[in-house]
Amino acid sequence: MSGIRTASTTGHRRAVRIAESAQAAEGVITLARFHDWFADRRRGDVSRVERKPLVELDRWSTDPATGDIRHDSGRFFTVTGLSAEVAGAAVPAWTQPILLQPEIGILGILAKEIDGVLHFLMQAKNEPGNPDGVEISPTVQATRSNYMRVHQGDPVPYLDYFRDTRRHHVVADVLQSEQGAWFFRKRNRNIIVETTDEVEPLEGFVWLTLGQLHRLLAGDTVVNMDARTVLSCLPFSGVGLSSSYPFHNQEFRQSVLRSYSEEFAGLHDIGDILSWITETRSRHEVLAHRVPLREAELWHRNDETIEHESGLFFRVIGVSVESGHREVARWNQPLLEPIGIGINAFLVKRVDGVLHALVHAGVQPGYLDVLELGPTVRCTPGNYGWLPEAARPPFLDDVLTAPPERIRFASLLSEEGGRFYNARNRYMIIETDADHTPDPGPDYRWLTLHQLVGLLRHSHYVGVEARSLVACLHSLASRPG
Amino acid sequence: MSGIRTASTTGHRRAVRIAESAQAAEGVITLARFHDWFADRRRGDVSRVERKPLVELDRWSTDPATGDIRHDSGRFFTVTGLSAEVAGAAVPAWTQPILLQPEIGILGILAKEIDGVLHFLMQAKNEPGNPDGVEISPTVQATRSNYMRVHQGDPVPYLDYFRDTRRHHVVADVLQSEQGAWFFRKRNRNIIVETTDEVEPLEGFVWLTLGQLHRLLAGDTVVNMDARTVLSCLPFSGVGLSSSYPFHNQEFRQSVLRSYSEEFAGLHDIGDILSWITETRSRHEVLAHRVPLREAELWHRNDETIEHESGLFFRVIGVSVESGHREVARWNQPLLEPIGIGINAFLVKRVDGVLHALVHAGVQPGYLDVLELGPTVRCTPGNYGWLPEAARPPFLDDVLTAPPERIRFASLLSEEGGRFYNARNRYMIIETDADHTPDPGPDYRWLTLHQLVGLLRHSHYVGVEARSLVACLHSLASRPG
Repeated sequence: MSGIRTASTTGHRRAVRIAESAQAAEGVITLARFHDWFADRRRGDVSRVERKPLVELDRWSTDPATGDIRHDSGRFFTVTGLSAEVAGAAVPAWTQPILLQPEIGILGILAKEIDGVLHFLMQAKNEPGNPDGVEISPTVQATRSNYMRVHQGDPVPYLDYFRDTRRHHVVADVLQSEQGAWFFRKRNRNIIVETTDEVEPLEGFVWLTLGQLHRLLAGDTVVNMDARTVLSCLPFSGVGLSSSYPFHNQEFRQSVLRSYSEEFAGLHDIGDILSWITETRSRHEVLAHRVPLREAELWHRNDETIEHESGLFFRVIGVSVESGHREVARWNQPLLEPIGIGINAFLVKRVDGVLHALVHAGVQPGYLDVLELGPTVRCTPGNYGWLPEAARPPFLDDVLTAPPERIRFASLLSEEGGRFYNARNRYMIIETDADHTPDPGPDYRWLTLHQLVGLLRHSHYVGVEARSLVACLHSLASRPG
Repeated sequence: MSGIRTASTTGHRRAVRIAESAQAAEGVITLARFHDWFADRRRGDVSRVERKPLVELDRWSTDPATGDIRHDSGRFFTVTGLSAEVAGAAVPAWTQPILLQPEIGILGILAKEIDGVLHFLMQAKNEPGNPDGVEISPTVQATRSNYMRVHQGDPVPYLDYFRDTRRHHVVADVLQSEQGAWFFRKRNRNIIVETTDEVEPLEGFVWLTLGQLHRLLAGDTVVNMDARTVLSCLPFSGVGLSSSYPFHNQEFRQSVLRSYSEEFAGLHDIGDILSWITETRSRHEVLAHRVPLREAELWHRNDETIEHESGLFFRVIGVSVESGHREVARWNQPLLEPIGIGINAFLVKRVDGVLHALVHAGVQPGYLDVLELGPTVRCTPGNYGWLPEAARPPFLDDVLTAPPERIRFASLLSEEGGRFYNARNRYMIIETDADHTPDPGPDYRWLTLHQLVGLLRHSHYVGVEARSLVACLHSLASRPG
């Protein structure tokens, strides 16, 4: 029977190559050289971003009937309103402004084996909302409007690798959601394609190993959100890895490798986890639908901005942008500016030497399918002055009072700078004792990395904040510890 | 490391037990006795269903602002309007009535090993829209309104097995969509739970093996839609099966067993299939949203019904129901009555002795995530007089002109009789030559059963019509051929 061929050989070989890249601390360029290059890009690719009243934005208008703010072309995105009802929640009903972008964009990373090690083609890219200018981005980061050339800018480099994958090897390809508190049902295609073509990096692009990317993740505002979410979809797997890499006296690092491996069972098997997700989705009654922006109650609008009456959560602002390095050199746009710095943290623990992360099945009104798995703690502490006490998230104190030696990862990372202005969250991975919260309640579960990697092959399971944390968890396999 | 335990042993053992049940042509009762019992139920459990004008339905009212038809309790379902735009489709924009039922109900089958063979507890249940009265249904088939006791009827028997699964073994548990042409984003929880409790079948319930259910599927309007969709979610798997069951001179049956097995590769690996689904979802631009029912253009409403001006597609009717065997003995409700009998057909072929089914990534406006995999052909031939020629589905002629020896399965099965009146489709599985359409176009792919079974662990992949066909495909492993 010529049909007999096991897919697992290919899968295993791919997992080994990903693991090898993760252990490669240097690649075709050294990290030291990268840092010089990156500093150069930050100095050279500077945008002038100035606040501009919403009513004065060129090519953006307010619909007189609804108050929605949209681009004259009808593309890009719209600032509209959302009405949400979440039965039994601390705040059971509210309205808010939300970004609507029904187009599915592409976030693509091109991979290639160079000198026997997988490298990833990354771009140093500036976005108007970035807090510190240029960040490390995917090879391609393009809305449909971008790549259909709605604004008649330059063509998007390397786009064809992702639009026609037939000649290449697709490593991952999945629609993933973005912030369910700020976007209405937004998804992007997260795709990693490996090629054997000769690919010369254009100006502003660089080949990095996964080990190098993992080190860069530890720096504040270096690796952008789009790169993190695509990296989280890598099919990491660990069968045999913990014996291939017997990092002596590095028990934590070993526990990360074991956590990737199907050989090591988790506290729950995957069937039970899928059943738990089904049950939580059935239990939470969520009704969310678009309303005209002018129906967002408690949100006040003037010529300049839209703000909540408490001054909390976020505001919608306008900016004018001038850039020498973008397809279009000048434009205006609205941006969502969060108030305060948020926290996205995983509690993790070792169970029988296998790392588990505590995920929260978190309802967000902008999700397509009720809820997605999020960090153990996802919040902006500043908002809790206004919100009811019951809204204060469980486990926040575990994060805020963690002793330094338990903080396995902490860095201040930005969110998508094309839509959010100066949006930063502190991403943290905090290790707790093995006997910490064996029964964390109906909306939480301890998962292994292998289980998260499996869920990430599909849409609607792991939210963008948890995906960033998964990329950070990957990085802990690359570092002594 | 005490964490070491492979989940695959449990998985394999479960697959073997499912396969054994599928090969068991008789169970605790014989099929002959079942048929006597079923005929008795059909005779004894008769509802009086009479058409009644929509405006006269007790406890259902028309919202004066929107024209939507809803129950006075606010529960059950609402007849509302849908506006759909599908860029590039033969009909690129339309409006229509649609059923809205945001609650997630439970479709649950209880399983138990009896005399060493897995049995499934099935219910003989009547619904007002059923064409021939009682059909074989899941153990529990309950809307949230049902099981929250909104209409104060009797409690739902066996419900606790599905509401609290902790003491039992969950075999499958997943939210699955229903008809995307008739329902707006409707999903039900499809769940199979195995218990070791002693369970006495109540009146109207019966324990059947999978082999028996498979034989019943071949009969017209015996196994209802809810039972079929739950059965399609069974984790069938075939590793080692084709050697355990070496059905001599039954090459077709062998090809079904091989198709369940990860040992036998398909034409595409699962990564390529997931990537294809991602790509098709990105390519199709679909905008669908609720509108007031009175904005459904070309649909005419009078006191009696709502109908399309062509007289095609479906009409919305009212019925009064009188039943001796239901929680509530009399009620009124609207039902959707399709015009004409539809066809849901899979083309299948053997590739290197492994059965593949040709699935269609089909857009429906009521899907939550753009499209789901459907039959090769899903249509009501009668509608094509009115629709443009380009809307005529590919492969329809392969189905309509198939020679009898190529028809591996054909039966006339009903759709959910609680919402649809006399809705019947001819379900067919047609075998084609191995060289049939190697390149079936961008929206079609040849999949193995193993791949379909894997996708069925998750939501949003396989639509209800294809799920019925998957249950029918399962049945071909139980029958000589």
